Amino acid sequence: MRDVCVIGLGLIGGSVLRAAALAGRSSWGASDSGSDVEAAVADGFDATADVAGALARAADADALVVLAVPLTAIDDVLRAVATHAPNCLLTDVTSVKAPVRDAVARIAPDARYAGGHPMAGTAESGWKAATATLFDGATWVVCAEESAGDDEPGTDLTAWRESAALAFDAGARVIALPALAHDGTVARTSHLPHLLAAVLANVAGGGGPLAAALAAGSLRDGTRVAGTRPELVRAMTEGNRAALLPVLDEALGLLGAARGSLASTGGLAATIDAGHDALAALTEQQGAPRTPVTLDLRAPDSLDALLSLGERGGWFTSLDGDVLTGEVA
Amino acid sequence: MRDVCVIGLGLIGGSVLRAAALAGRSSWGASDSGSDVEAAVADGFDATADVAGALARAADADALVVLAVPLTAIDDVLRAVATHAPNCLLTDVTSVKAPVRDAVARIAPDARYAGGHPMAGTAESGWKAATATLFDGATWVVCAEESAGDDEPGTDLTAWRESAALAFDAGARVIALPALAHDGTVARTSHLPHLLAAVLANVAGGGGPLAAALAAGSLRDGTRVAGTRPELVRAMTEGNRAALLPVLDEALGLLGAARGSLASTGGLAATIDAGHDALAALTEQQGAPRTPVTLDLRAPDSLDALLSLGERGGWFTSLDGDVLTGEVA
Repeated sequence: MRDVCVIGLGLIGGSVLRAAALAGRSSWGASDSGSDVEAAVADGFDATADVAGALARAADADALVVLAVPLTAIDDVLRAVATHAPNCLLTDVTSVKAPVRDAVARIAPDARYAGGHPMAGTAESGWKAATATLFDGATWVVCAEESAGDDEPGTDLTAWRESAALAFDAGARVIALPALAHDGTVARTSHLPHLLAAVLANVAGGGGPLAAALAAGSLRDGTRVAGTRPELVRAMTEGNRAALLPVLDEALGLLGAARGSLASTGGLAATIDAGHDALAALTEQQGAPRTPVTLDLRAPDSLDALLSLGERGGWFTSLDGDVLTGEVA
Repeated sequence: MRDVCVIGLGLIGGSVLRAAALAGRSSWGASDSGSDVEAAVADGFDATADVAGALARAADADALVVLAVPLTAIDDVLRAVATHAPNCLLTDVTSVKAPVRDAVARIAPDARYAGGHPMAGTAESGWKAATATLFDGATWVVCAEESAGDDEPGTDLTAWRESAALAFDAGARVIALPALAHDGTVARTSHLPHLLAAVLANVAGGGGPLAAALAAGSLRDGTRVAGTRPELVRAMTEGNRAALLPVLDEALGLLGAARGSLASTGGLAATIDAGHDALAALTEQQGAPRTPVTLDLRAPDSLDALLSLGERGGWFTSLDGDVLTGEVA
């Protein structure tokens, strides 16, 4: 089992370190946050404030380096990677993927990189909130990119396999997606819901005590995620700006069309019927029977096969040597 | 206890008739729907397809007439009221109030009317879904209007009291609001949530199988009410057009501002922080300690007192003679 070096020991990084250790891996962590390091050491983990030292150790051990710092700190940490572990196997757990992919190509181009996004979290933060089971049953995107000619080779399959192996050790299922497909999809499924919840809470709040008195289930459900810590929501939405803008435009277009139709003809059938059908289709896709699949990463077309399966929403649940096992609808 | 005549025997009308009967009232119902009448009679209730006859009987008994038909059928039923029970005590259970108030003034101006909206429902419809406990613990708005000069007297307090008494018999709490305040508030707390859920389901659906694979709690919560039967959502949103349009404009304005800010400065703090604070304020208002109040409907300023309490989100839970008991934050 490959060693794991986690940079950043908050909720997600701490949970990765705990899960790696629980799986029996040799693992260590480093963080700029003195309180997280202190808490991790107190819990018996190998943690240090010396990020450079931790990376140098990773280079010596050919460990998988996991970047678990906020998007705004990625560039700084990548500079340390380029200095102390320039050829390492590298992944990250940031909630947007194209900006990190681009930063790696710019700052640490020799790293063997496959980006990751474990789709799990809690309202808490910091090492003290971390658990080894945070990712149990979660979906963990591990990014894969086709080659775009000789200058841009596709994703390093060793980096992809090692990142996926860590996700499996943590109990997650893995879906292979290009960074842009990931970012565009989470803009629809997570970032837009957070912005609409904020808008709805604002409009409902304009109704004052009467809104509080008449609020029913539709408002409670529609505003729930507006209770998420604002800095977390800002980090993921602002970090995904490029993918979120067209999705926001789509939502504005649909809401504006509803407004126009209500004002002109008085009818809202197009909006409401289509929304009902779209939810039914999503629910049906989620419940559709799935077929087992296996994929051998040594096969010459394995990168294409990974991407083709991911595009259809297929995922993997385990790895035996180089052979993945999973399912697809 | 005053007799009750319910016109319309679907989910809401059927539940009103069942609750009135359970409270020991002499009660009867009528409906154009043969299947609802048949089902009600089979369940041992006094129900008929003869709407005119049921209204004439209400006029003889000075019963409270409850209109429980869709908004689109209100005008027709009001014409029958004007013919067969022109001076009756009248309420309704339609989800928008200003349009019904205006229709009553136009078609059955001699009825002693106080509009109502019991805020309860299920996904089911028809007599077979009706239960005597549907309104237990629900908020039931009973509309009250100030006098606007000699030509427009305020709400008839007998009609208000009798409508509220029926709501209390059904286990609901009663809030007194002008029709416009009701319609504007439910546009914010119920109709906008339904439209945003439809828009979100549509945008998420555009993400195809990947959206289904990556969907998390924020999407599930944000789209839940898009599963409501489209004809119900259309009826309440289209029926509340006048109040819903400015609320839609508010939502469009906030979402457009978020879009503009993300595109220009890259920041979403204004939207996200304000949404978080608005939800916290709503939740705080809902959990605020409440003080007991009583209100004597015989007092000369009782209509003003009712309205002033309603405006602050205060509600009543019981009636003893002419004295209401309730609470306000």
